[in-house]
Amino acid sequence: MAAARTLRIGLIPGDGIGREVIPAGRRILESLPASLNLKFSFVDLEAGYDTFQKTGTALPDKTVDILKKECDGALFGAVSTKVAGYSSPIVALRKKLDLYANVRPVKTTAGNSNGKPIDLVIVRENTEDLYVKEERTIDTPNGKVAEAIKRISENASYRISKIAGEIALSRQSIRDAAPGTATRSQPMVTITHKSNVLSQTDGLFRETARRALAAEKFSSVFVEEQIVDSMVYKLFRQPEFYDVIVAPNLYGDILSDGAAALVGSLGLVPSANVGDNFAIGEPCHGSAPDIEGMGISNPIATIRSVALMLEFLGEMNAAAKIYAAVDGNLDAAQFLTPDMGGKATTQQVLEDVLKRL
Amino acid sequence: MAAARTLRIGLIPGDGIGREVIPAGRRILESLPASLNLKFSFVDLEAGYDTFQKTGTALPDKTVDILKKECDGALFGAVSTKVAGYSSPIVALRKKLDLYANVRPVKTTAGNSNGKPIDLVIVRENTEDLYVKEERTIDTPNGKVAEAIKRISENASYRISKIAGEIALSRQSIRDAAPGTATRSQPMVTITHKSNVLSQTDGLFRETARRALAAEKFSSVFVEEQIVDSMVYKLFRQPEFYDVIVAPNLYGDILSDGAAALVGSLGLVPSANVGDNFAIGEPCHGSAPDIEGMGISNPIATIRSVALMLEFLGEMNAAAKIYAAVDGNLDAAQFLTPDMGGKATTQQVLEDVLKRL
Ligand SMILES: CC(C)[C@H](C(=O)O)[C@@H](O)C(=O)O
Ligand SMILES: CC(C)[C@H](C(=O)O)[C@@H](O)C(=O)O
Repeated sequence: MAAARTLRIGLIPGDGIGREVIPAGRRILESLPASLNLKFSFVDLEAGYDTFQKTGTALPDKTVDILKKECDGALFGAVSTKVAGYSSPIVALRKKLDLYANVRPVKTTAGNSNGKPIDLVIVRENTEDLYVKEERTIDTPNGKVAEAIKRISENASYRISKIAGEIALSRQSIRDAAPGTATRSQPMVTITHKSNVLSQTDGLFRETARRALAAEKFSSVFVEEQIVDSMVYKLFRQPEFYDVIVAPNLYGDILSDGAAALVGSLGLVPSANVGDNFAIGEPCHGSAPDIEGMGISNPIATIRSVALMLEFLGEMNAAAKIYAAVDGNLDAAQFLTPDMGGKATTQQVLEDVLKRL
Repeated sequence: MAAARTLRIGLIPGDGIGREVIPAGRRILESLPASLNLKFSFVDLEAGYDTFQKTGTALPDKTVDILKKECDGALFGAVSTKVAGYSSPIVALRKKLDLYANVRPVKTTAGNSNGKPIDLVIVRENTEDLYVKEERTIDTPNGKVAEAIKRISENASYRISKIAGEIALSRQSIRDAAPGTATRSQPMVTITHKSNVLSQTDGLFRETARRALAAEKFSSVFVEEQIVDSMVYKLFRQPEFYDVIVAPNLYGDILSDGAAALVGSLGLVPSANVGDNFAIGEPCHGSAPDIEGMGISNPIATIRSVALMLEFLGEMNAAAKIYAAVDGNLDAAQFLTPDMGGKATTQQVLEDVLKRL
């Protein structure tokens, strides 16, 4: 038997329920079947509002250094955003590690579909747009005027569209491998923008995405586009129509929360921040101060984020096992947290998923 | 009997189904009961893609001049946005007439609620944000980089928040007048922003909105806030919770399409572009090239926009009559266009509403 692959994973719980769900993610990794021949080592890292209060910075250099030098991947929980003027370290982390794609699959399971099976993924550009955070404020005789830069580059638009195309192809090959259950016969990418107003910035995104997806290797992919307001509308009217949605940073942020509403809870939706050689799994939900410390936060988004991180680290089998265990938990609907209408604790959901692993 | 008030209304059908719904709006105005003591005169005005092709400009000076000099209000249909690089004249019109508020009520009727009665209004800032359309593109050795300015001013944020507060109060006084049916006891304004990323621009919006709504006259208004991604999520999870939502331009654009999805069709949702002395009614839907010329476009959004325009011109009774006629049509559900699952034509829906007027 080949030597086990060892992956070193940084754990950044952050604030609030981040501290409840990240330990669940760690347990999942530790409990993967030995047959997968995977080993993990962990390093606890700091970031977030509490870190900011203790050390004066929300994202210590040490955290970034250790991620870069020692780790293969990481799990990020959530950070408090309740404080005016304080901005989340996840945005800085994405830039510092050049994790240029934010991949957010939104999927119903058999037992959780409300009749409309949804299986889409939002591929969000993760480094630019308004997230460059270049802002200034001018005092004028008529009051303050603040400006922010929205930056869209050909480069970043190209690479995110290419990833979107690749994800569309890989999803199709998974469907092809299970033809009986496939819900669509052709991969599709929907380009989202607002080029009817922002002809240069979003125009560049649109045009570059079209060009990237016109490459020979994507010839089987059906490419369409939607203006962002209409995209939100259609996402709610016919979510089952969509496969891969590619969008600039801010639209992707908004669309993924919207899509999460369709599957019942933000507590179900994972994400991965992906670069060429690194991936950070991150649940889409926030720090949820309203339920912090009650032990009832939904660990599913984090558990799925663990799987997603593993996918991008090349561990498809491990990922598939975790997804199946989660689907089993949701379909049985015996242990669900309150956001899903259940009464289970974080711990009970975790144990149920572990049992199915 | 006092002399009738005469209102002169500009009609700007634009492109596509704009040409089918604006005539329906005119018919409504012409058919208002004589007891209201209102007279209308109309002037047909050009704008849109066809105008652009004919004259080289999408918004002729003549259209703006006549609106400014002769008209009390106007109805705007929709314009084609399918063409890259061509941008909608409605954005220019809003700025040229300083129609700084875009008011978008989204409401279910008794027969159209799916169990969750929704009655909210999105108050969208209508003159700035990314809609200032200040963009530039730079050629770099690594490809093109485009930038757009997002501008948020204290002034515009203040006046839009004040309008939001006033609308919240006026909605409460309508509820107070019909206590049996009221769904909420206190007016509420939800401020939407993304100040966790855009601390200066959206931070200024947030802070200014808080200040505007802290005025003595709004002391009965409950003020809360939501980050835009979470706002989209909550809008879908508990739309019945919201009353008035105030937002910068782009978020307002996205949120109103999202809210429209909740009531079944964009074809139901009206808007008014409102300035200090002028209002343009505008259905929220677009030019809908897919159904253009088929005679099946839903006239309800335009008919409600007529009522909304009249409200802002001070004609509350006329507006109430129109709303009631529309509610009657929807609740009877006998004449509905295909977007609502019915088989009626634009003309049949119009006749049914007229009958109920
Ligand atoms: C916390 C916030 C800065 C972040 C974002 O806007 O990217 C969050 O909403 C997300 O989607 O991960
Ligand atoms: C057509 C477009 C420019 C417009 C906007 O973005 O304002 C439309 O979406 C709207 O909401 O009226």
